[in-house]
Amino acid sequence: MSERRLNEQVRIVGSGLLGASIGLGLRDHGVDVIVADVSPSAQQLAIDYGAGRAPAEGDNPGLIVVAVPPDVTARVVAAELAAYPNALVTDVASVKLGPLEQLRAMGADLSRYLGTHPMAGRERGGPIAARADLFLGRPWVLAGHDDITYKRAAAIEDMILDLGAVPIELTAETHDEAVALVSHAPQVVASLMAARLVDGPDAALGLTGQGLRDVTRIAASDPGLWVQILGANASPVAEVLRGLRDDLDAVITALDEPDAGGSRRTIAEAIAVGNTGVARIPGKHGQDRRFAQLVVMVDDRPGQLAKLLTEVGEVGVNLEDLRLEHSPGAQIGLAELAVLPEVEHKLVSELEARGWRIAAVSA
Amino acid sequence: MSERRLNEQVRIVGSGLLGASIGLGLRDHGVDVIVADVSPSAQQLAIDYGAGRAPAEGDNPGLIVVAVPPDVTARVVAAELAAYPNALVTDVASVKLGPLEQLRAMGADLSRYLGTHPMAGRERGGPIAARADLFLGRPWVLAGHDDITYKRAAAIEDMILDLGAVPIELTAETHDEAVALVSHAPQVVASLMAARLVDGPDAALGLTGQGLRDVTRIAASDPGLWVQILGANASPVAEVLRGLRDDLDAVITALDEPDAGGSRRTIAEAIAVGNTGVARIPGKHGQDRRFAQLVVMVDDRPGQLAKLLTEVGEVGVNLEDLRLEHSPGAQIGLAELAVLPEVEHKLVSELEARGWRIAAVSA
Repeated sequence: MSERRLNEQVRIVGSGLLGASIGLGLRDHGVDVIVADVSPSAQQLAIDYGAGRAPAEGDNPGLIVVAVPPDVTARVVAAELAAYPNALVTDVASVKLGPLEQLRAMGADLSRYLGTHPMAGRERGGPIAARADLFLGRPWVLAGHDDITYKRAAAIEDMILDLGAVPIELTAETHDEAVALVSHAPQVVASLMAARLVDGPDAALGLTGQGLRDVTRIAASDPGLWVQILGANASPVAEVLRGLRDDLDAVITALDEPDAGGSRRTIAEAIAVGNTGVARIPGKHGQDRRFAQLVVMVDDRPGQLAKLLTEVGEVGVNLEDLRLEHSPGAQIGLAELAVLPEVEHKLVSELEARGWRIAAVSA
Repeated sequence: MSERRLNEQVRIVGSGLLGASIGLGLRDHGVDVIVADVSPSAQQLAIDYGAGRAPAEGDNPGLIVVAVPPDVTARVVAAELAAYPNALVTDVASVKLGPLEQLRAMGADLSRYLGTHPMAGRERGGPIAARADLFLGRPWVLAGHDDITYKRAAAIEDMILDLGAVPIELTAETHDEAVALVSHAPQVVASLMAARLVDGPDAALGLTGQGLRDVTRIAASDPGLWVQILGANASPVAEVLRGLRDDLDAVITALDEPDAGGSRRTIAEAIAVGNTGVARIPGKHGQDRRFAQLVVMVDDRPGQLAKLLTEVGEVGVNLEDLRLEHSPGAQIGLAELAVLPEVEHKLVSELEARGWRIAAVSA
């Protein structure tokens, strides 16, 4: 049985954003996609949306994708392994060690199971938000283990490539520690910072700038989903947070006695180490490159931002990043453009020559 | 002496980003601007840049703006009050209570002093980054106190209005508590989260998504400046951080025993309270409005984003916010557009009709 054969009929269990998006994407590749959900109405919604067809007598999927919440992932994977003894089974839960250990404890056939985790989705709920190209260009982790052969796992990697994602192999432990650091702990930090705002005076909230907006943006995430993710990856997340808590205690102690010996140094080091940490985040295209930034003033009317970007394109400069800033109380937008340092000077001169007002340029 | 007279000659002490930007902005209004800096080379750079002229015999400024680091603000303000007994003096330091109390302790003439704080600047260092329109549409706090009359302070409010900013009157205490909440504590939180990344494995950093990028963006700020700001506003910042630390301890305890009674509830409540907090941040134009979001796929070539935005403009839709997302490893960009909910459906249909691929739409 070749990998291609396995991928001819794929059964997806769970019809939320991830399950439905995988279904849409695989159907674009001519796959016979079966969508199953414990909720008949959710299943029908995903089918209506084009994610696949209902299960039928005689279904013989080569590959099964379990896309259910982390709490029930192992149980559903075990049931699918038992119900389809010839099928390869994967899941897309955002934690990987717990399900693997639970399956091992249940005595499940791990030679037919390989867990994965697409770094996409953004918790914009349900099949209605699903898109065939949700995974395009995103990392998609395969959590390798010793009970499945490389050859057998190939069908799962093929599926990931078909969906346009970038396969990355990590162990389940390494994956869980990685997402604790880059996803789960930041979620807790953003939520706890946002929680401080609940009792803040309106006058204070009115002074909010882009910094606080950025720090707290993901605090709008769904508590129901996150309690499962954090609970399922509790130990690695707690370890990251304990390190943060110890640093936080040191900063609080220093702030309580700001003029004591060593206090200023503690505070300065906290900010300086943060500089080092944030510089490690890879930039666009996976590169660790710093860009030049310029802020251009844009009238807050339809077409003005497009006009700016058209002229940036005419100058022949590619934008590496772009953000709009809010200007409370003003009918003006600030467009922050990131470009390669070597084109910054040219872009500034050309834009100024065309009458754009440039509000700030990075050093 | 009318307010206009006071504003005819303005002396700016300190030629960094804020001082030089104020100078440039006031010169646009025909003001005779004097730039003074303890560093002769910094002073000359700001003058070369057009921020004003050098001090001269017979200078008689009606208004003096002290734009020096927080640590030395009170000392410089006191010296200016003494040197120019007819002048009104303000400062632009990002903390307000400390300088006011220090001036009172020094016996300075507070009937001629009113501290202010423009919520702008972004710590892009030096006069080279200065712009006359840096303050356009930004809140600018006046820290009112009982020793200066309303009438006398009017010249400062006029200057703020001339620079295009939005004057907001708060007491020094209220200001410092407000910026502790919306600016200083978020800086510490971002820095401490970023500090966790210093020892993170490359594989983990490679999974970084937009969430971590946002949470840690301001962690790139200057330690030298922030140690002064945090030291000068230590008590209000420590109070915000203590609340966060207590919540963090509760979450860590819950994560240490995720299956214990109450643990899931503690975690869910932390995320849910964060939802409530982030929803309090005012949206664009100071309104607390939620926008519809859609994510459009854009080829990573010059002109493509402009083409998208031109067509958004042709459809007649105004963008409320726009962000580009990084797609590690892919030559594709994801443009996240925020629009009024009532135009979302129309925009999606029109863009799809024009061949754009829409990767995700908010629920």
